[in-house]
Amino acid sequence: MRVEIVAVGTELLLGQIADTNSQWLGEHLAANGLTSQFHQHVGDNHQRMVLAFRTALARSDALIVCGGLGPTQDDITRAAIAEVMNVPLERDEKIIDVISAMFASRQRSMPENNLLQADVPKGATIVPQTRGTAPGLICPVGQKVIYAVPGVPYEMTDMFERAILPDLLERQRLTGVSSVIKSRVLRTWGTSESALAQALDDRFDSLDDDARMTIAFLASGIEGIKVRLTARGDDEAHAVSLLEAEEKTVREIITRELGDIVFGVDDETMEVAIATRLLERKLTLGLAESLTGGLIASRLVNVAGASSWFRGGVVSYASEVKFDVLGVPEGPVVSEAAALAMAKGARRVLAADIGLSVTGVAGPDSQDGQKPGTVFVGLATPSGEQVTALHLPGDRPRVRSYSAISALDVLRRELDATHV
Amino acid sequence: MRVEIVAVGTELLLGQIADTNSQWLGEHLAANGLTSQFHQHVGDNHQRMVLAFRTALARSDALIVCGGLGPTQDDITRAAIAEVMNVPLERDEKIIDVISAMFASRQRSMPENNLLQADVPKGATIVPQTRGTAPGLICPVGQKVIYAVPGVPYEMTDMFERAILPDLLERQRLTGVSSVIKSRVLRTWGTSESALAQALDDRFDSLDDDARMTIAFLASGIEGIKVRLTARGDDEAHAVSLLEAEEKTVREIITRELGDIVFGVDDETMEVAIATRLLERKLTLGLAESLTGGLIASRLVNVAGASSWFRGGVVSYASEVKFDVLGVPEGPVVSEAAALAMAKGARRVLAADIGLSVTGVAGPDSQDGQKPGTVFVGLATPSGEQVTALHLPGDRPRVRSYSAISALDVLRRELDATHV
Repeated sequence: MRVEIVAVGTELLLGQIADTNSQWLGEHLAANGLTSQFHQHVGDNHQRMVLAFRTALARSDALIVCGGLGPTQDDITRAAIAEVMNVPLERDEKIIDVISAMFASRQRSMPENNLLQADVPKGATIVPQTRGTAPGLICPVGQKVIYAVPGVPYEMTDMFERAILPDLLERQRLTGVSSVIKSRVLRTWGTSESALAQALDDRFDSLDDDARMTIAFLASGIEGIKVRLTARGDDEAHAVSLLEAEEKTVREIITRELGDIVFGVDDETMEVAIATRLLERKLTLGLAESLTGGLIASRLVNVAGASSWFRGGVVSYASEVKFDVLGVPEGPVVSEAAALAMAKGARRVLAADIGLSVTGVAGPDSQDGQKPGTVFVGLATPSGEQVTALHLPGDRPRVRSYSAISALDVLRRELDATHV
Repeated sequence: MRVEIVAVGTELLLGQIADTNSQWLGEHLAANGLTSQFHQHVGDNHQRMVLAFRTALARSDALIVCGGLGPTQDDITRAAIAEVMNVPLERDEKIIDVISAMFASRQRSMPENNLLQADVPKGATIVPQTRGTAPGLICPVGQKVIYAVPGVPYEMTDMFERAILPDLLERQRLTGVSSVIKSRVLRTWGTSESALAQALDDRFDSLDDDARMTIAFLASGIEGIKVRLTARGDDEAHAVSLLEAEEKTVREIITRELGDIVFGVDDETMEVAIATRLLERKLTLGLAESLTGGLIASRLVNVAGASSWFRGGVVSYASEVKFDVLGVPEGPVVSEAAALAMAKGARRVLAADIGLSVTGVAGPDSQDGQKPGTVFVGLATPSGEQVTALHLPGDRPRVRSYSAISALDVLRRELDATHV
């Protein structure tokens, strides 16, 4: 099943908003063994929408249209699909009842505009709305199909999982050709994409003739470099077993060539990796942040339940805050000594088991004789203190972001190595 | 001139990376009066690339292809364009010299693969590379044209501005039809999209027949709701004058109907708005953050020169940190009293002119008898203290992000209203 995605909206063409829907759909189609060979963006224009939909149906088996189902004059996806189906629009009274009831439950009356959302191409099946006012549509076109879903991401994802994906998988099953794709992401920090690629070069070559397994690298900024393994199996169990064997091989190669750089898998971010380790050992953490300015703290509190291991932090942006609040001795604040004193200060002031600190130069100018990108990470634990010096590339926001994940990785490695 | 964008790469179809290039190009084409009616994504497959390029040329005047110009076996954009042009590829020795020299300057020898980057469709013009190894291409196809640029954003943007855009504008000039598009974004916080739309409803209707001016709303999450005014003028001066008149009208309507909700224009974020006001009055700021966990601080330090007005912050995630570090009296920490004490504590501990605090419930559970979304913002200035209670919608990350910008907006309004 080749599934094309068409995202509708002039704002996409003008670059006013990013199209996150096509990316999300592409990922979820692939994860379910469905192929997507083309995506399109088209504006809110009837003729051009019809052209885009016809182009898609000519080269794919199914088409998912995102957007243009709302209640305003711009929302003309329904009419464009009706033209492609060569059928009239018919007003569905049941949809009107549902939308009226939604407005009534908020003690508001339904604006007239919303009637448009009840216009349905003849022969289409409704996907009931649960999160917004616009229902989705399943529209047969010969042996092919057009799905229409709202452009609002959380309405779209709900309808895709609830109705579109099951319908696609059933159509796929009827074709008799099926395979299951499974993938796993190994998250790494502390090496370059080319070093990773070089370490896995032989493995890469050995996979070349075997389309069942692919390895890809994704440089993901402050989330590190991801190694994505994708297996295509005859069924779920087959795909999983291929994937597990490959993960084992790849992990062995990475660890042998580059050391302990894999910090998590799939959605396991660095902050989740830290949370897991601290929880296991019943340790609490306090931060002292200078150039990162609260970035580390704000990443940590994204983890649900952070209050059981995260005490808090001091954002010591001004030097006097380092001296007065954290007890750092007066002197250059971008230095190993300052980083150590900040970590000890955070541990003491915040009454935490572990103090982690970052001081450095985000740029563009040098400070205390240190160049932009120079960063010191201090760590104070019940068993001692240490400082790590880093030299990070990039502009001001990048140095700051890299500092945040690098500091957390210093803590992760220490926790893994020494069982603090 | 209708310019279509085709982004090449299987990783785009699989959703492994976001296509930021089409958005950037769409925005920059529009800003230069060039129309973009369609975008496509296509994978690294010769036949399908040829199909996508032919589809684009059939419905647009020019095509910008992003990606597939690198040195690996996957990089087949050159060959696909040659097929569409119906010409052979020819190896350009001068390109080889340039790439060899790049490698030599890094004291490395050029891998054989890089020779592929010197293969050029016969009749194409080279766009010299300045940031990467891949040159770009300008490929005439009858009266139409295909541009090929690398997929790496900072190589792509450089080539677009240096060579592609000037070529497009020259082609546009030769058609004798030209106009200049200018837009301005008014950034607002503190109202809903529908309230804004309702306030501007009459203005909207009066523009309906006048394609020279458009108004659009963009709900931009923690950046607020943006009102984008776009003017199409005969030349630069005409577009600017249309835009300025419209901005004046729209600002008057918004202020009359909804009050002081416009905090910035164009790229002026809330943190920049705060920075400007604090700098003007030579005031310093200190923070006490609970549920926002450093998010406010990390936004503020993104502003260059923040050290002249931002002292730092205390991330008092654990209640004991509120009591021990900030001097908050023991008691419920999600309360007006705690918010006030935190703001005063931040002002004192961080030796700042102004203390701003946030405490509240991010969810999913209630705390201190308060529901998720309940947030108190405390403000302590030389002239007194105040607390604002907020009730914010959404899940945990959303409540936290909304709290951050809402707290900064409380400070902005106070600075504007009282000249602290």
